[in-house]
Amino acid sequence: MRGFYIGRFQPYHDGHHAMVGRIADEVDELVLGIGSADDSHTTHDPFTAGERIMMITKAVKDFDLTTYVVPLEDINRNAVWVSHVESMCPDFDVAYSNNPLVVRLFEESGIEVRQSPMFDRDRLEGSEIRERMVADESWRDRVPDPVVDTIEEINGVKRLQHVSDSDSLERYTA
Amino acid sequence: MRGFYIGRFQPYHDGHHAMVGRIADEVDELVLGIGSADDSHTTHDPFTAGERIMMITKAVKDFDLTTYVVPLEDINRNAVWVSHVESMCPDFDVAYSNNPLVVRLFEESGIEVRQSPMFDRDRLEGSEIRERMVADESWRDRVPDPVVDTIEEINGVKRLQHVSDSDSLERYTA
Amino acid sequence: MRGFYIGRFQPYHDGHHAMVGRIADEVDELVLGIGSADDSHTTHDPFTAGERIMMITKAVKDFDLTTYVVPLEDINRNAVWVSHVESMCPDFDVAYSNNPLVVRLFEESGIEVRQSPMFDRDRLEGSEIRERMVADESWRDRVPDPVVDTIEEINGVKRLQHVSDSDSLERYTA
Amino acid sequence: MRGFYIGRFQPYHDGHHAMVGRIADEVDELVLGIGSADDSHTTHDPFTAGERIMMITKAVKDFDLTTYVVPLEDINRNAVWVSHVESMCPDFDVAYSNNPLVVRLFEESGIEVRQSPMFDRDRLEGSEIRERMVADESWRDRVPDPVVDTIEEINGVKRLQHVSDSDSLERYTA
Amino acid sequence: MRGFYIGRFQPYHDGHHAMVGRIADEVDELVLGIGSADDSHTTHDPFTAGERIMMITKAVKDFDLTTYVVPLEDINRNAVWVSHVESMCPDFDVAYSNNPLVVRLFEESGIEVRQSPMFDRDRLEGSEIRERMVADESWRDRVPDPVVDTIEEINGVKRLQHVSDSDSLERYTA
Amino acid sequence: MRGFYIGRFQPYHDGHHAMVGRIADEVDELVLGIGSADDSHTTHDPFTAGERIMMITKAVKDFDLTTYVVPLEDINRNAVWVSHVESMCPDFDVAYSNNPLVVRLFEESGIEVRQSPMFDRDRLEGSEIRERMVADESWRDRVPDPVVDTIEEINGVKRLQHVSDSDSLERYTA
Repeated sequence: MRGFYIGRFQPYHDGHHAMVGRIADEVDELVLGIGSADDSHTTHDPFTAGERIMMITKAVKDFDLTTYVVPLEDINRNAVWVSHVESMCPDFDVAYSNNPLVVRLFEESGIEVRQSPMFDRDRLEGSEIRERMVADESWRDRVPDPVVDTIEEINGVKRLQHVSDSDSLERYTA
Repeated sequence: MRGFYIGRFQPYHDGHHAMVGRIADEVDELVLGIGSADDSHTTHDPFTAGERIMMITKAVKDFDLTTYVVPLEDINRNAVWVSHVESMCPDFDVAYSNNPLVVRLFEESGIEVRQSPMFDRDRLEGSEIRERMVADESWRDRVPDPVVDTIEEINGVKRLQHVSDSDSLERYTA
Repeated sequence: MRGFYIGRFQPYHDGHHAMVGRIADEVDELVLGIGSADDSHTTHDPFTAGERIMMITKAVKDFDLTTYVVPLEDINRNAVWVSHVESMCPDFDVAYSNNPLVVRLFEESGIEVRQSPMFDRDRLEGSEIRERMVADESWRDRVPDPVVDTIEEINGVKRLQHVSDSDSLERYTA
Repeated sequence: MRGFYIGRFQPYHDGHHAMVGRIADEVDELVLGIGSADDSHTTHDPFTAGERIMMITKAVKDFDLTTYVVPLEDINRNAVWVSHVESMCPDFDVAYSNNPLVVRLFEESGIEVRQSPMFDRDRLEGSEIRERMVADESWRDRVPDPVVDTIEEINGVKRLQHVSDSDSLERYTA
Repeated sequence: MRGFYIGRFQPYHDGHHAMVGRIADEVDELVLGIGSADDSHTTHDPFTAGERIMMITKAVKDFDLTTYVVPLEDINRNAVWVSHVESMCPDFDVAYSNNPLVVRLFEESGIEVRQSPMFDRDRLEGSEIRERMVADESWRDRVPDPVVDTIEEINGVKRLQHVSDSDSLERYTA
Repeated sequence: MRGFYIGRFQPYHDGHHAMVGRIADEVDELVLGIGSADDSHTTHDPFTAGERIMMITKAVKDFDLTTYVVPLEDINRNAVWVSHVESMCPDFDVAYSNNPLVVRLFEESGIEVRQSPMFDRDRLEGSEIRERMVADESWRDRVPDPVVDTIEEINGVKRLQHVSDSDSLERYTA
């Protein structure tokens, strides 16, 4: 059986990792969908899809599980989003999500969704880790080791601190 | 004479219906443009274009008026929006709107616009009806009967309640 | 029961009209999808979506059938095309098409498709009518009367003759 | 040496003009990139790219400097933004910006950026000038003379006052 | 009076230059629109918008004429193309073109177009110059001097020869 | 060292597989970019990105090599294509390609490219395998075993035979 688990993974952290460990008990193969793959260099989405692919691929080697790590560009039309995901990913039997919109969209398409309160905790953790990076507080103990390596290699904390000064409404203009 | 009336129609309600009735006194034919046709499954825009086409087409049969119900995908460039509307719709002689941006864009293109304070009331009503649906309060007395039928057929209240739990900033991701 | 019938309708002609008449025997309501709705002013697609909506809406009044005429912008991704159509149109039970790609896409989505050799004849007719317009040969006897009216009102033959001189590869440039 | 200076220029004002004067001491040629070129008719971005090109081209004739005024449509993907700018503009040696995101993106691409506190003042000035226009207060003394001419020619203050009434969330719909 | 002249300018050559000279007799200011601004690195469109802006800006200094050189990204919807051009360019009174589609689109929008057989010759010349570059035959005598400088500075002939080996259908893939 | 190898992989075949084997001698890790990831259900591109990810991931397990399989949606702007690839993929040191356009684009961006005549053979093989599928001739001996499994699981030959009847110019319309 193949499962599907989606996140923005900004960055991939211990909460995601525990979740994958749990899903690994239920499926043989897992598709990890990277949401908002086309976003990067913002406070909310600091890392590129390529950087997130590297983090996740290295980290999930811990599990005895065939994985597929798939960047998913935003399509901004809820009504075709499930088809978009299905065409970009290997076929899956069950989706794991606690996001009400995702749950609704999959269910309207007849796809089984399994929910868990763990997901909510995950989301909060991502946001807190980014805040800690901006404030130069400790964050390395909250992500798997390969994620630390990737972020240091790309000088990721510096990037996040830099762009967090931006006024997002003005983006590229003085 | 052919008129043009635009709304998001989320859903089409008695306020819109009264407005169409009034416009029917002034024109022979009416184009009803469905704005944000590509949005759906959100608190602000729960229904798809197809669902809204069905609601409106059934409801406007009440009037002795040739109507054209046209979904309009968002184009996100104000300067070409009038051309977009004109190319998607049968040619019209006058537009009905109270939205300052729409009024301005049509007027800069030399198209006559008729305004009415009724439009503002309409907008508020759509928002209130959606809130009533989320809160499981009465809403059926505020929309034409065919709209009740459509929303029940597609299980629309359930959908709206479901997606209204979503954190729109995080959309598809845990 | 509601059916779905798609065409580019450049222009809507007697072949399409006969086909709608035949479908009318099998369904209560019919969605007419206008493909390539965003194309116009070319030899292959001379008329805008709005002009085609007007032609079709007037012509299908001949039938005792509730119809929905829906412009469909091209989405250029086969894998999400069915979802795009479904979100823009009132829900339908059966699709009518002889186009192998459309048949395949609907069937992979579990939607019933009914085919008929009539469709191929239709396609050829559209192309021949456009050639006759360019060559100033008779074409009025091949389309329903309201289509003649619309094309004359918009000065459509002149437009087609004009743009048929264009070198499509160079489009807007000298 | 050729420099690059980006702004939204809504409108081009004395702060921008002083900045160009300063840059003129350091470079022989200057590319002026007009950000959000596809936005117009909003409170934040009232003027079209064409109108801004006209304002700037006329105003920078004051300087002994070869200038290129280039509209830049938004691309909404930070990771390819620098390539987008480079392909649309004559090649440049140094960029002038104080926007943290722009600084970061150029630096990650190995392009030299020169910063100055003047840029922040500029940004505030644009916003204040638009507010003064909306409130019918004096603004002509804060922009170069050709900018006054352009804005009056297009009836720009009226447009800004008009669209500033819009509820941006509802855009085109009643 | 302000005129508008559009071309792809791949590259800007003596035919274009003669045409600008002729237009200069009729107008005070001229907008030069660079079509297909987003195309580059192909046999048909080897040069980027930025490179073409540089060629043209330098070359038209020969004339006593205020010029605006404006890159125009393709919009792929004929029905909104005129609005797109108008929003990106300073307002103009008359357009110069011999392209039947452009003539038609401007005329349907009520804009005066002036045609000249010279335009056809121009188009052929661009194609021949590119073929000469690919074949390492002489081309420098067919373009203004600043165009030679730009093409040599960017190593443009080499690029064109390189990409002309590509199988355009396969683009980026082996 | 990390390499990058791009193909459309329609389907992934023995020629690609031999190439990956050869690259495996030169690098420790390999990014396999799937070009035209958004195309599917055509004669030229029958398989979805998800299906191709599955084929490749299973097949490359033969090699002692860390691999990243990355779908790349077409961006249709050569000048930003390299940035697009870089943002979607883990950072790489060298690209393998024989496609003149790809070679040129990478080289203009300062990225090392290694070429090999093997690539041309590969391209022809993909096309021949698709023709054999359409003609119901033997093809299983030209692809790795996991590719046979995937294509059979999704009923891929049937799909290809079906869509190869389509008139691509008419796509979705009768």
